Amino acid sequence: MALLIAVHGWDSESWSSRFSNLLPGHDVRCHPETTGNPAEIRYLLAWKPDSDLLASLTNLEVIFSLGAGVDHLLQTPDLPDVPIVRIVDPDLTMRMSEWIVLQVLLHHRKHRTYHAQQHQRLWQPHDQPAASAVRVGIMGLGVLGRDAATHLSRLGFQVAGWSRSPKEIDGIRSFSGADGLDDMLKRTDILVNLLPLTQDTRGLIDYRLLSKLSTDGKRHPGCDAPVLVNAGRGASQVEADIVRALDDGTLAACSLDVFETEPLPAPSPLWTHPKVYATPHVAADSDPQTLSHYVAERIQAFEAGEGLINVVDRATGY
Amino acid sequence: MALLIAVHGWDSESWSSRFSNLLPGHDVRCHPETTGNPAEIRYLLAWKPDSDLLASLTNLEVIFSLGAGVDHLLQTPDLPDVPIVRIVDPDLTMRMSEWIVLQVLLHHRKHRTYHAQQHQRLWQPHDQPAASAVRVGIMGLGVLGRDAATHLSRLGFQVAGWSRSPKEIDGIRSFSGADGLDDMLKRTDILVNLLPLTQDTRGLIDYRLLSKLSTDGKRHPGCDAPVLVNAGRGASQVEADIVRALDDGTLAACSLDVFETEPLPAPSPLWTHPKVYATPHVAADSDPQTLSHYVAERIQAFEAGEGLINVVDRATGY
Ligand SMILES: NC(=O)c1ccc[n+]([C@@H]2O[C@H](COP(=O)([O-])OP(=O)(O)OC[C@H]3O[C@@H](n4cnc5c(N)ncnc54)[C@H](OP(=O)(O)O)[C@@H]3O)[C@@H](O)[C@H]2O)c1
Ligand SMILES: NC(=O)c1ccc[n+]([C@@H]2O[C@H](COP(=O)([O-])OP(=O)(O)OC[C@H]3O[C@@H](n4cnc5c(N)ncnc54)[C@H](OP(=O)(O)O)[C@@H]3O)[C@@H](O)[C@H]2O)c1
Repeated sequence: MALLIAVHGWDSESWSSRFSNLLPGHDVRCHPETTGNPAEIRYLLAWKPDSDLLASLTNLEVIFSLGAGVDHLLQTPDLPDVPIVRIVDPDLTMRMSEWIVLQVLLHHRKHRTYHAQQHQRLWQPHDQPAASAVRVGIMGLGVLGRDAATHLSRLGFQVAGWSRSPKEIDGIRSFSGADGLDDMLKRTDILVNLLPLTQDTRGLIDYRLLSKLSTDGKRHPGCDAPVLVNAGRGASQVEADIVRALDDGTLAACSLDVFETEPLPAPSPLWTHPKVYATPHVAADSDPQTLSHYVAERIQAFEAGEGLINVVDRATGY
Repeated sequence: MALLIAVHGWDSESWSSRFSNLLPGHDVRCHPETTGNPAEIRYLLAWKPDSDLLASLTNLEVIFSLGAGVDHLLQTPDLPDVPIVRIVDPDLTMRMSEWIVLQVLLHHRKHRTYHAQQHQRLWQPHDQPAASAVRVGIMGLGVLGRDAATHLSRLGFQVAGWSRSPKEIDGIRSFSGADGLDDMLKRTDILVNLLPLTQDTRGLIDYRLLSKLSTDGKRHPGCDAPVLVNAGRGASQVEADIVRALDDGTLAACSLDVFETEPLPAPSPLWTHPKVYATPHVAADSDPQTLSHYVAERIQAFEAGEGLINVVDRATGY
């Protein structure tokens, strides 16, 4: 029984040689070059695999998805009914927290203003609230949201988070359900999105949602808000609404790592909008070596009779 | 016996009304408006006081310096031989760590590159080391250096620090003495300065020092280094040397909050140098309300017979 690597648009050769090293007794194959008999494939390492391939893998036992998000994979027609394991890797989590902390601090510490002043040779301090006077709200308190929340809370921010089920995390206020979201939004100066893309979260960040931010009258006068920071999925945001909100002042600024269409098309106003920081889906690019180790370990544990962990729930879509 | 407020260039009226509220039984005066008989002054709240005033305060018991740095004050001629207490305030410390973490992450996460690409509508990811592959070195492991070190270490960076006396701080490598400095510099990709300005630290950050950074051959290939981040004092840096080092590639980039002359003079090349982030000495602007509380509390403790804390050592100059 074999492990098949199907990593569309990624360097299959290096993936295959890493796995041959990490799992010496295993038959490691690459799609489409060395797929061989599809009925012999037991494990699939998948990154945007095509559905013809998936339908042919009649003896598949586990799919390992190469990424924290499985929205692409779940949209594949004819997805075999086997467990899908997603990547949960401390390296990826820490990289995401680096990006989130950076973006939150950029806005909080008025980087755009100071940078513009620098080009004007203008020495002009501004009223600066302490982090403890600024409210961050995080949509999604999973592996990534929870870690970002902890770092931001240690830096002094008043952090809240929203998830499907209520959470108990030291120092973090937990909101859940639809009412919970509205309650969080109105006390949020800086909104961070770390939700997975599902039916429920598609298009969630629209003009209506943005209009609810920081509306409880308790914003510190020196705080430039509301701000949106999105590193979840681009399809959760309505980009036309974000631009409208930036232009009419509903939103003070934003940082986006993900977009409705990636690469972000050249005509998008987000590219050069003065209130937008955009990065090309690099918030948490993990190291292929680290990812391979993770998957190899999971395969060994599975073969030693341990259960699978980080299995995706197809009903909720994450 | 009275408390005299001498805060040159700051709003004395508000300082005085805050202290009248915080220390109701006390005779609170403002220099020069209501100084009265100088022999009646017991406590001085000082921010760049003039030396004539200082010489006249014959019954002074304590000077409270309004700032974490006391270099200005110690340079005042005729400084009475009484304890000088400096501000050590969690609010100030946390603000400094916000600024340091922001600047380190800006460089680490290639913000300048991504921002330039954004204006060119260019979608181009870059090789990104994890924080755990990047070495930060902090000069000064006092109140501020230690807190910044802890935050950076939690974000995953390999953090070392340099101080006069060796330190034991969880997860932070400690260097001390002149040899210690060289050893730290060569393993440092991002150098942070949080030293006080003293005879020993004046002009310390010169071309020679910058040339020693990140020279041990162990820098991650994806790390844009070396980088200098200075929020200590401007007189510790030789600005002509920094510009030279930036121009010849000895230094990849820098972030400066402090300058040899402040405000930074208009002709300085640092204003518009593409590799420089400059802020107008705002890294840790503390809240006057918080500072006043701190001083009022110290005065009450002193009058209740407790010893003074955070007293400056005149021999070392900090
Ligand atoms: N930009 C990048 O480079 C990058 C990199 C990696 C990942 N990502 C994105 O980040 C996402 C999150 O990753 P993760 O590992 O943190 O996922 P996770 O551990 O599965 O956590 C998802 C969180 O979202 C919450 N959630 C899901 N649907 C919800 C809904 N309808 N209403 C309220 N809360 C909801 C979940 O609530 P419960 O806790 O109640 O289940 C959970 O707290 C990924 O799905 C991926 O899209 C982006
Ligand atoms: N930019 C801003 O907005 C801003 C705001 C506040 C403060 N500051 C600056 O930050 C400085 C540091 O503040 P702090 O509260 O952290 O001071 P601190 O608690 O007195 O710490 C000073 C640190 O520097 C070390 N040090 C001093 N002289 C040294 C030398 N010659 N060689 C090696 N190490 C030396 C000390 O070593 P030991 O531990 O061995 O004594 C100590 O670790 C202040 O003096 C001020 O200039 C700037």
